[in-house]
Amino acid sequence: MANSDRFVNQIADIDADYTKWYTDVCLKSELCDYGPVKGTMVFRPYGYAIWERIQQEADKRFKAYGVKNAYFPMLIPQSFLMREAEHVEGFAPEVATVTHVGETELAEKLVLRPTSETVIGNMYSKWIGSYRDLPLKLNQWANVVRWEKTTRPFLRTSEFLWQEGHTVFATPEEANADALEMMGVYKDIANNVLALPVLTGRKSEKEKFAGAVATYGMEAMMKDGKSLQAGTTHYLGDNFARAFDIKFLDKDGAHKYAYQASWGISTRLIGAVIMAHGDARGLCLPPPVAPVQAVVVPIGAGKNPQVGEKAREIAQKLETAGLRVELDERDLSPGFKFNHWELRGVPVRVELGARDIEAGAVTVCRRTDGQKTQIAIDDCAQKIAGMMDEITADMYGKAEAFTRAHVVATSSLGDMEKALDGGNFCDAYWCGDRGCEDKIKQLYAATSRVYHADQSDAHEHKCVCCGKKAKHRIYFARAY
Amino acid sequence: MANSDRFVNQIADIDADYTKWYTDVCLKSELCDYGPVKGTMVFRPYGYAIWERIQQEADKRFKAYGVKNAYFPMLIPQSFLMREAEHVEGFAPEVATVTHVGETELAEKLVLRPTSETVIGNMYSKWIGSYRDLPLKLNQWANVVRWEKTTRPFLRTSEFLWQEGHTVFATPEEANADALEMMGVYKDIANNVLALPVLTGRKSEKEKFAGAVATYGMEAMMKDGKSLQAGTTHYLGDNFARAFDIKFLDKDGAHKYAYQASWGISTRLIGAVIMAHGDARGLCLPPPVAPVQAVVVPIGAGKNPQVGEKAREIAQKLETAGLRVELDERDLSPGFKFNHWELRGVPVRVELGARDIEAGAVTVCRRTDGQKTQIAIDDCAQKIAGMMDEITADMYGKAEAFTRAHVVATSSLGDMEKALDGGNFCDAYWCGDRGCEDKIKQLYAATSRVYHADQSDAHEHKCVCCGKKAKHRIYFARAY
Repeated sequence: MANSDRFVNQIADIDADYTKWYTDVCLKSELCDYGPVKGTMVFRPYGYAIWERIQQEADKRFKAYGVKNAYFPMLIPQSFLMREAEHVEGFAPEVATVTHVGETELAEKLVLRPTSETVIGNMYSKWIGSYRDLPLKLNQWANVVRWEKTTRPFLRTSEFLWQEGHTVFATPEEANADALEMMGVYKDIANNVLALPVLTGRKSEKEKFAGAVATYGMEAMMKDGKSLQAGTTHYLGDNFARAFDIKFLDKDGAHKYAYQASWGISTRLIGAVIMAHGDARGLCLPPPVAPVQAVVVPIGAGKNPQVGEKAREIAQKLETAGLRVELDERDLSPGFKFNHWELRGVPVRVELGARDIEAGAVTVCRRTDGQKTQIAIDDCAQKIAGMMDEITADMYGKAEAFTRAHVVATSSLGDMEKALDGGNFCDAYWCGDRGCEDKIKQLYAATSRVYHADQSDAHEHKCVCCGKKAKHRIYFARAY
Repeated sequence: MANSDRFVNQIADIDADYTKWYTDVCLKSELCDYGPVKGTMVFRPYGYAIWERIQQEADKRFKAYGVKNAYFPMLIPQSFLMREAEHVEGFAPEVATVTHVGETELAEKLVLRPTSETVIGNMYSKWIGSYRDLPLKLNQWANVVRWEKTTRPFLRTSEFLWQEGHTVFATPEEANADALEMMGVYKDIANNVLALPVLTGRKSEKEKFAGAVATYGMEAMMKDGKSLQAGTTHYLGDNFARAFDIKFLDKDGAHKYAYQASWGISTRLIGAVIMAHGDARGLCLPPPVAPVQAVVVPIGAGKNPQVGEKAREIAQKLETAGLRVELDERDLSPGFKFNHWELRGVPVRVELGARDIEAGAVTVCRRTDGQKTQIAIDDCAQKIAGMMDEITADMYGKAEAFTRAHVVATSSLGDMEKALDGGNFCDAYWCGDRGCEDKIKQLYAATSRVYHADQSDAHEHKCVCCGKKAKHRIYFARAY
């Protein structure tokens, strides 16, 4: 074992420096690395494998929902971006622009897509002619570029990977319903694939997507009490239909503008998984997306060849049971290996030594809570496979309890400051004025996240900021 | 039925105008469309679904071969491209360059990857330290940008989708062996997934990848006798290792440059499938990649509700048997529907009318040869599912016979001209001089494709062009 290897697992203290802990975990578990251009990142195999599983789970759900995949060009004429006033205002400062090919200057500047409403709108205007062409539901898996000043792996990078769904309907009601239903699909993915509890709801005008009528978001609480926007869906009204002339001949013989929705989740979700589930030892991955679900660690195989043999047999059994398995036969100490796989967040460690073999059992250790159990070798494969759903549910439960414990009812700015500084979300009533949002942001660096699911008593309360009559119940939080 | 629908299937005559036939098939079968920026294309759902199947089949094979997926940034510092002399010469004229973000000019110009040897080389130099880090085999699925003057959907577009594998080894032998083995994997995909016969072999110095020591190619013959380069693998020697300082500490304690290979297949393969298998009626898709493998067409369902009912039942059975099925219940004539699905190349059409029901059978028609058979309803699902492999094999056989019939032995420039004008590949002997390749290109617009598998008697022959002693047996052809 090289001397340098011994320090691989050293990550910053999660309680003392959460920011450094995050970066350490990202780099030292080999999820990712920094790219050569500032603000870019490399998805290393271990990180990309998580994304592949998220893709599979999401794609399956989209297809079941009647969505088809397509692929649109990354290069968009600069003029397209200008057609929707809010859209250009929101995205222009951060778009990368291609001006030359080889030595030749292009006649029209091209932007790298920051999102594809415009280029897709342009195609939809060609493809849609009649009510029979609707609804149209397409999705693309793609890279997008948004130049950000402050970047962090997975959370905010110049280029990131995502999916963007773009749907078209004959009526506003259907388009808005699509945005809401897709938020349901995203919540299902967050809860059941990533074990992430999320708060979902509409966003304020200030926080909505540039060009949308309404944006719905899902917000996940990280371990520092900050919020991470983990997915958004947008009801676009006929804003882009008017900008790109997407019209159809309706049953009644009239030509009408179509109504649209769009929705996206991205590689940010990996950042959410790291920060919501990780602990002092590193990553803690939910089994549905863990590239390795179980690692088999033989103990003392050097002295006892039977141990290695049995370990290989067990690893094989686990694979046959459908698990993603790693067998760690390296000539390193068990302690080193334990750290190595804990840092990488493998849900289950299967230890096997001479004493275990004598007892006809393996020792199984759950990453999420360190719980150890002895399981008979004969049915360990089935039992360990069965543990995966339990672990996902336990991880969700733990994160959900944490989130619940860190949402604080606040009825004054003083309450709010205290709650935010204590690492909490604020459950607040708000008058609906942008001025109050701006003030809260300026004072406490917190933003409105999503409307509370229960708006029934909003009008009986006063705004947390200005004290005027409240219009909405809404969450405020500091956010990534 | 709208009047305009009746003309949807009108495509150019494949024998009279193969070029227009190709474009018509691409657009009218809704595989793709042109993007708003010249030279870009849109993958519509039907075309993208073919790519998804190619991806699945390839990815499975790569993983079985020990390759892991990763993702590297699309934006590459312009200076990186300059580090390998041949590489920059080959790619500089066609790279798109990002100079601005918003209104701000970037300090260093960035290029959109035309291929990723440079940015990946930069990361490999960070990650590789010891012989224990080797071999390293990564792949990425990505978009790349190469600005081409003349573009055609799938075959040559400014942006295209591909996979690029980048592998690193301790020795030249291993790296070269990797390039050869991956060519075997590509050939397997071409033959067994796409039913495409291919000629594989090394490429000439003139035709090799910019920066490689050796390039191996697979060439597929299209129906006009032109060749389509369907995949390439490259042995890179230590060219990029020297340019990016990829060194490792070997077992013997010496620091050494690593040796690399890279390999790629792209959405071009869809163009190959269209042109190698298509016919006067349109597309003809090999079952492994067909988005729809069987279409069920009820005949006279309007008059007889039992027909519709039975058709739904059969479609359900076919799906249960694992097929990708479409049930066409539209209120359109059977003839229209037949054309519609023939244009789209669906491998099997299942017709069901009142008379079929009486006979307890369906009529099954194979797209590849129009062969019709009656199959008892009771076991039609199993039988039709079983036909898929047969159809793939038959399509391969047909294309293979065509290719064999259109490779002509040529021993003079006169032979060559005649062979090329007759829509053939030339099986020729060549002295190995670039001057002869240049002359053949200038005279006949043909290029050397790949070395013949049998080089045993090359030295006994004379060069097809200059008449000097030959060094190689090689194929010349016009190419896409």
